[in-house]
Amino acid sequence: MVKPLFKVSTPNEVIAMLKSHLNLKEITQSNIEVVDIKTALHRILAEEVVAPVNLPGFNRSTMDGYAIGAEDSFGATDSLPSYLKIVGEIKMGAKPEFKINPGESAKISTGGMLPEGANAVMMVEYTEQIDDTTIEARRSISPWENVVREDEDLKTGEIILRKGSRLRSQDIGVLAGIGKTNIKIYREPKIAIISTGNEIIPAEGEPRIGQIRDINSYTLGACIEEAGGIPVYRGIIKDEVILLEQEIKKTIKEDKVEAVIISGGSSVGVRDVTLEVLNRLGKPGVLVHGVSVKPGKPTILAISDNRPIFGLPGHPVSAMIIFDLFVRPLISLLQGGQYNYNSAKEIEVELTCNMVSDSGREDYIRVFIYEKDKKFYAEPILGKSGLISTMVRASGLIKIGLNIEGVEKGSKVVAKLF
Amino acid sequence: MVKPLFKVSTPNEVIAMLKSHLNLKEITQSNIEVVDIKTALHRILAEEVVAPVNLPGFNRSTMDGYAIGAEDSFGATDSLPSYLKIVGEIKMGAKPEFKINPGESAKISTGGMLPEGANAVMMVEYTEQIDDTTIEARRSISPWENVVREDEDLKTGEIILRKGSRLRSQDIGVLAGIGKTNIKIYREPKIAIISTGNEIIPAEGEPRIGQIRDINSYTLGACIEEAGGIPVYRGIIKDEVILLEQEIKKTIKEDKVEAVIISGGSSVGVRDVTLEVLNRLGKPGVLVHGVSVKPGKPTILAISDNRPIFGLPGHPVSAMIIFDLFVRPLISLLQGGQYNYNSAKEIEVELTCNMVSDSGREDYIRVFIYEKDKKFYAEPILGKSGLISTMVRASGLIKIGLNIEGVEKGSKVVAKLF
Repeated sequence: MVKPLFKVSTPNEVIAMLKSHLNLKEITQSNIEVVDIKTALHRILAEEVVAPVNLPGFNRSTMDGYAIGAEDSFGATDSLPSYLKIVGEIKMGAKPEFKINPGESAKISTGGMLPEGANAVMMVEYTEQIDDTTIEARRSISPWENVVREDEDLKTGEIILRKGSRLRSQDIGVLAGIGKTNIKIYREPKIAIISTGNEIIPAEGEPRIGQIRDINSYTLGACIEEAGGIPVYRGIIKDEVILLEQEIKKTIKEDKVEAVIISGGSSVGVRDVTLEVLNRLGKPGVLVHGVSVKPGKPTILAISDNRPIFGLPGHPVSAMIIFDLFVRPLISLLQGGQYNYNSAKEIEVELTCNMVSDSGREDYIRVFIYEKDKKFYAEPILGKSGLISTMVRASGLIKIGLNIEGVEKGSKVVAKLF
Repeated sequence: MVKPLFKVSTPNEVIAMLKSHLNLKEITQSNIEVVDIKTALHRILAEEVVAPVNLPGFNRSTMDGYAIGAEDSFGATDSLPSYLKIVGEIKMGAKPEFKINPGESAKISTGGMLPEGANAVMMVEYTEQIDDTTIEARRSISPWENVVREDEDLKTGEIILRKGSRLRSQDIGVLAGIGKTNIKIYREPKIAIISTGNEIIPAEGEPRIGQIRDINSYTLGACIEEAGGIPVYRGIIKDEVILLEQEIKKTIKEDKVEAVIISGGSSVGVRDVTLEVLNRLGKPGVLVHGVSVKPGKPTILAISDNRPIFGLPGHPVSAMIIFDLFVRPLISLLQGGQYNYNSAKEIEVELTCNMVSDSGREDYIRVFIYEKDKKFYAEPILGKSGLISTMVRASGLIKIGLNIEGVEKGSKVVAKLF
C-alpha cells in the first residue's frame, strides 16, 4: 500500500498561506525606489498617477488643413462650396496671435493649436485655394471634427495609472506626456537560489560518472528574471543540515534577499535535511509539506522572519511548474502587484489525444502546440519530470484541475505558453 | 474628392521589402557575441546546439527505493512478495563499486546511479525491510521503471536548440546541463529614435500653450526594449531638412545603430522634410510611402547603406501600431530570428459590438478585454489615434483584415495583447 508521506496542500491553500503569513504591507513599503521612466518598462508602479494638467492642454488639429468655424461649412458640397477668407497661418508650437471670425479660416498643420473662434479643421483635401486670401471648402464638417479637444486625452485630476500596475510601453509614454519622468516603483525582489544534492556539480565542471550538472540554478534563475525578480546564485551546497542552514542565513544577511529557493532534495534523505533546516529557522516555520500537484508533489514552504523559503522538487520539470505556481505570484506580491501577467500568455488549444489524470491533484501536462487551419492543437509530450529536454520540446503546459479525472481527445483546453 | 497622396503598400509588401532589400546575412553574421548563459534569457541563439554527450549519462533513479533486476519482482504482490538480498547502498554522485546479481538489491536515492545488473527501482513505499540484509518487495515492476536511462534526456549528437531560436528558461537550463555555459547569440540591435516636430518639447520641460511633450520617444523606446533591441534616444529635432539629415548621419556614425526611427512628422510639411531627407541618403532610398493600415497610413520606409530608416506617423497610437507591424519583426530579422514571439500573446475574444472597416486596409481597433464566465470579451475603445490615453486604457488590439468590411457583434476574433 502507498502510505502518504505527508498531508498535502492544494495550490490555492499555498497562495493563501503566503498572503496570510507574510506582512506584505511592510515588505512593499520598504521596497520602493524612484527611477527614470526610461528604465521602468515592466516594473510595478508604487504610486497612483493622476493627471496634473489637461492633455494636450489646447485644442489641437489632427489634420493638415484650415481651422474654421464648423458652422461656416454647413451644407458645403463639391458643387456648392463655402468661401472662406484666409486670415493667417498657425505656427507650430505657439499660441495663435489672432482670432477667427465667421467666414474666416487659418492654415493649420497636424498638431497645431486652433485659434480662438475656430472649432474644426477642414482637411486640405476638401479645399481649393482660389486666391491669396480665399479658399473654397467643399464639405460640411461637424464642430470639433479633426480636432483633439484640450482635455480629450487626459483631464486634470483623472487617475491614469493605478498603484500595482505593471508598466507597458504606452504607460511609459503617458508618463512622459504629463512630464512625470521619474516614478516610484517597487524594487525587484532578490531571490536566492541554493542547489542541493551530493551528485550535483557546477555547470562549468566535468561530471564524473554518477554526477550531474546543476540545471535547476540556471532554469530557476532565468524564471526569476522573467518574473521580474533578481536571481542571486548561491551555488551548490552538500546535503547537510549545518551547511544548508549556514548558507540560508548567509544569503539572507549578505544579499538581503526577499526569499530563498532551495532546489534539489527530492529524495527522502535530502528532503529531511531541508525540512529540518526550515523547521529550525524560526516562526512560523514550515507551513506546507507536499502539494497536490503533479509533477511537483514534494514541495516545502516555510516562512521565517517575514521571508518565504521554498524547498522545490529536484526534478527540473517539477521545479519549473512549482516555480510558476508559487514563486512567480510571490514575486508579484512582493511588489504589490495585483496583475497576473502570465495570464496574458494563454491560448485555447484542442487536445490531440485522451489524457488521464488522478482526481485530487492538479496535473500539468507538457504539450507541443501547433497551428493547422487557423486552429491550435496540443500534443502531449510524455517523459519523466527529470527530463529537461521535454520542457525544451514543449511549447507550454495544460492543466487538468483538481477534481477532473481526465480530458478527452478533441476537448478544448487552455494552454499556458512558455 | 479625396486625392490619394501616394500609392500605399500593404503590410506584407513592407515586410517583403525589408527582407529583399536588406542583406540580412551580412548584418547578422557581423553581429554575434559570446555571453554567459546566465545573461542570455530571451536572446536569440546564433549557433546550433548539439548534445555533446548523453544526458544524464548514466541510468539514474527517479525515486527513493531499491535498485533491482525488474525480473525479480515479476508477480510480486502484497500477499506474495518477493524477497531480495540487500547488497549495499548507492552513494550519491558516485559510480557504485558493486554489481547486482539476480535476487539482489541495493538501497538507492532519487538521482542515484543504478549499479550494473539493476534495471529498475522498487519504490520504498512498496517494500519492507525484514532484517539487516533482506527486503520484501510487494509489487511487480517493469524493466526501467523509475529510472531515467543514460540517454533518455539527451542523446549524443541530437540537435537541442536551433539557430535563431529565442532562449527560454528551460533552454538556459538544458545548456547548463550539457556544460555549455557560454553561448553565441546575436547582439541586440541598436535602434535610434529621433523625434521631430516644432511643437514638441522634451518630457522634462514645461510646455507653453501650443506645445506638447515628447511622448513617442518614450513609447517607442520601451517598445524597442520589449522587442529585444536597445533604444538610442536622440531627442527632438526641428523640422528642417539639414538638421534632420545631420542627425541621422550622426547617430549612424556615432552610435553605430542598425536602424533609425523618425517619429512625428504626420503633417504634410514635416512629411515632406522626412521624405526629402530619406531620398537624399542613398540607395535604394525610399521604398514605402504610405501603408494600407489604419491608423498608421503616413508611414515611410527607406533603406540606405543596408540600414532601414522609418518615418513613423506622429500620432502615438499610430506609431505604436506601425512599430508592432514593421519594427518589431525587423528587430527579430536583424537577429536572425525566425520566431514571432508576439504570437504568444494572442487570445480569442468575442466582440461586444459591431465594428465597421473599409475594405482595402487593415484596421487595428483598440479594445478593452474582460473575462466573464470563462470567456473573454473585447469592447472597442474609441478615440483619435493622437490619444495616448486610449492605449493606456486598452488591453490589446484586434485586427480587421485587408478585405473585410466589418465584424459583427458576437464574432470571435483574435486579440493581440499588450
